[in-house]
Amino acid sequence: MIDIDQIRADTPAVSRLAYLHNAGAALMPTAVVGAVKQHIDLEAEIGGYAAADRVSDRLDAIYGSVARLLNAAAEEIALTENATVAWQMAFYALPFLPGDRILTAEAEYAANYVAFLQVARRTGAVIEIVPSDASGELDVAALERMIDDHVKLIAITWVPTNGGLVNPAAAVGKIARAYGIPYLLDACQAVGHMQVDVEAIGCDMLSATGRKFLRGPRGTGFLYVRKALLQQLEPPMIDHFAAPWVSRDRYQLRDDARRFETWENNYAARLGLGAAVDYALAIGLGPIEQRCRLLAGRLRTGLAAIGGVTIRDLGRTPGAIVSFTVAGYEADTVVSGAATAGITIGASHPSSTRIDAEVRALPVIVRASPHYYNTEAEIDRLIAHIAGLARR
Amino acid sequence: MIDIDQIRADTPAVSRLAYLHNAGAALMPTAVVGAVKQHIDLEAEIGGYAAADRVSDRLDAIYGSVARLLNAAAEEIALTENATVAWQMAFYALPFLPGDRILTAEAEYAANYVAFLQVARRTGAVIEIVPSDASGELDVAALERMIDDHVKLIAITWVPTNGGLVNPAAAVGKIARAYGIPYLLDACQAVGHMQVDVEAIGCDMLSATGRKFLRGPRGTGFLYVRKALLQQLEPPMIDHFAAPWVSRDRYQLRDDARRFETWENNYAARLGLGAAVDYALAIGLGPIEQRCRLLAGRLRTGLAAIGGVTIRDLGRTPGAIVSFTVAGYEADTVVSGAATAGITIGASHPSSTRIDAEVRALPVIVRASPHYYNTEAEIDRLIAHIAGLARR
Repeated sequence: MIDIDQIRADTPAVSRLAYLHNAGAALMPTAVVGAVKQHIDLEAEIGGYAAADRVSDRLDAIYGSVARLLNAAAEEIALTENATVAWQMAFYALPFLPGDRILTAEAEYAANYVAFLQVARRTGAVIEIVPSDASGELDVAALERMIDDHVKLIAITWVPTNGGLVNPAAAVGKIARAYGIPYLLDACQAVGHMQVDVEAIGCDMLSATGRKFLRGPRGTGFLYVRKALLQQLEPPMIDHFAAPWVSRDRYQLRDDARRFETWENNYAARLGLGAAVDYALAIGLGPIEQRCRLLAGRLRTGLAAIGGVTIRDLGRTPGAIVSFTVAGYEADTVVSGAATAGITIGASHPSSTRIDAEVRALPVIVRASPHYYNTEAEIDRLIAHIAGLARR
Repeated sequence: MIDIDQIRADTPAVSRLAYLHNAGAALMPTAVVGAVKQHIDLEAEIGGYAAADRVSDRLDAIYGSVARLLNAAAEEIALTENATVAWQMAFYALPFLPGDRILTAEAEYAANYVAFLQVARRTGAVIEIVPSDASGELDVAALERMIDDHVKLIAITWVPTNGGLVNPAAAVGKIARAYGIPYLLDACQAVGHMQVDVEAIGCDMLSATGRKFLRGPRGTGFLYVRKALLQQLEPPMIDHFAAPWVSRDRYQLRDDARRFETWENNYAARLGLGAAVDYALAIGLGPIEQRCRLLAGRLRTGLAAIGGVTIRDLGRTPGAIVSFTVAGYEADTVVSGAATAGITIGASHPSSTRIDAEVRALPVIVRASPHYYNTEAEIDRLIAHIAGLARR
């Protein structure tokens, strides 16, 4: 059971804001804010190196916390500046030859897609889009039909940035494993509000951010790389932490996933990330997922009943992101109007998910993303606000 | 004139510590600590996106501040997670063919050298070490004799991590410009305590960190890329911030140096970096450099007079890093003994600068690095402490 009163007490801003922008950046709980600020104070008090030394046990423990969150091993985790760097360090480590095929999905995130384009241009690899099924999810049967010896990577976004779609990550994993194809999963919008189990999913690499549903600080992210793949992947760029300089003409890559890190880091932010992961684990990802789906479902149903509102979510069992448009209103106007009413939501632009946006001829859409700390009353406030807008 | 009382009032820890570890991580002034913590609070209060929007003017201004620090233009600056990432984004963007020559110096930093080794292995480029002159500085005449059409990069560390050496960065720049060779300068240990003028130096790319003499937060760094070179450099990795996804099969790299950044960032840390740069600029890098050299000179002279102490610094006019060994004591023992006496210093391991360490058969050495906020009395305290050690 989620102790919603305690959780809201840990999140003081909820007394002033109906904060429904967790797919952008969630509100940090006080434990996270405290972890960050306390370490900055310690650095000012004894210096940045001594401060890191003093909390080295807690810094090491972050790997274990993230590993627990994903059902992975601590050695399979790298902590990074953000999810993009995590994803890049994995993706750009993969070798491609002319004609190699990279399979991705329609709602792939812009950050990843431009990287595909860069590597395709550099190497002669080709990018192919797995079509969606009637529900809007990646079509698993179509994926399987596309597999041949030239497929060198399956890289998809589990929960796209622009709506409630939850792609069938585990079904994709079954195919990747059956055919021995590396599988890179962007879990940015999944981690923190869904149960994530890399064994059940069968992905080889997974990237995520701290600031979204995980409620960590901005400027944090992590990468999971399966042990069996780790040793085969040389990072695209290295320093002496990733690869100690062992003799004049030789470096030796670290054995663990920290080969994808650099030596210098923002330890205050990392401690905040660790506190955020521990906070989520203490509540339990099962109850969190259940409550997020409940609140998002309530929001989706309430909005769908308003004339002039079109729900834009895809998939059979949509998650905690609710996307919609209101006839006669630009998305940005809806967002700023809600802000004035004390309700924080966001917008998603076609350029973030260009292929899906083109297929569906999407305009800029409104994106509301509740979290477990929200209340039914806050959901209803947004519904009432949008209803008021649509009536005008 | 430096108002030392005000500066020390801005640095509360100096009342308890003789902090002489500024080449590791300096003490942040209260303005920096405040900038970081205030933004974390704002993020907790209104959410991470709204917080960044609210301070967007201050965030933009950071580029101007760094540009002023370097005598560059704001469009030539990228803000990065750390100096290593800054350096990597420039270095790994350069194309090399088999037989291309990369020229570097004896005291090159480990992080950079392992990257040379990786790229040499990947591309067939070769790494060549410019010899040092009798003083220990990079031998500029020798560098010029090494130049031919195959030299595709000169990449050196201005002030190495392991001692007072200040390499002749501007003399190297003259040669680089005369022969049209890209010149990448690692200025990690120079920025914040020396006057840095990219026009006077003639470097094309320069990387630096926030946490050292600049007194910024950990996990901050920046890259300068000369406008003329910028358009020719495609970053080794991109996201949709560096290269917006403009149509299905096309991305468009940003025109400015921010093509080397990623979309998501630690804005609190960035604001701290901006505050640190502004703090240094307000004091003036001229007076700062003068005072640093004065204090380092006093320390070097005092230590040199102690029997059993060997100063390990190289170069004609050594800077703010004072390196030494004490006969009969391991460096780490000296460092921990000083810590017990309330004096913070560090050590430098041979693996950080392997070539120089091998040439000079260096053991682990002690590294003391004063800053302008230190006093003569603190310098004398360290001298007396080491003298006490050497007498035993």
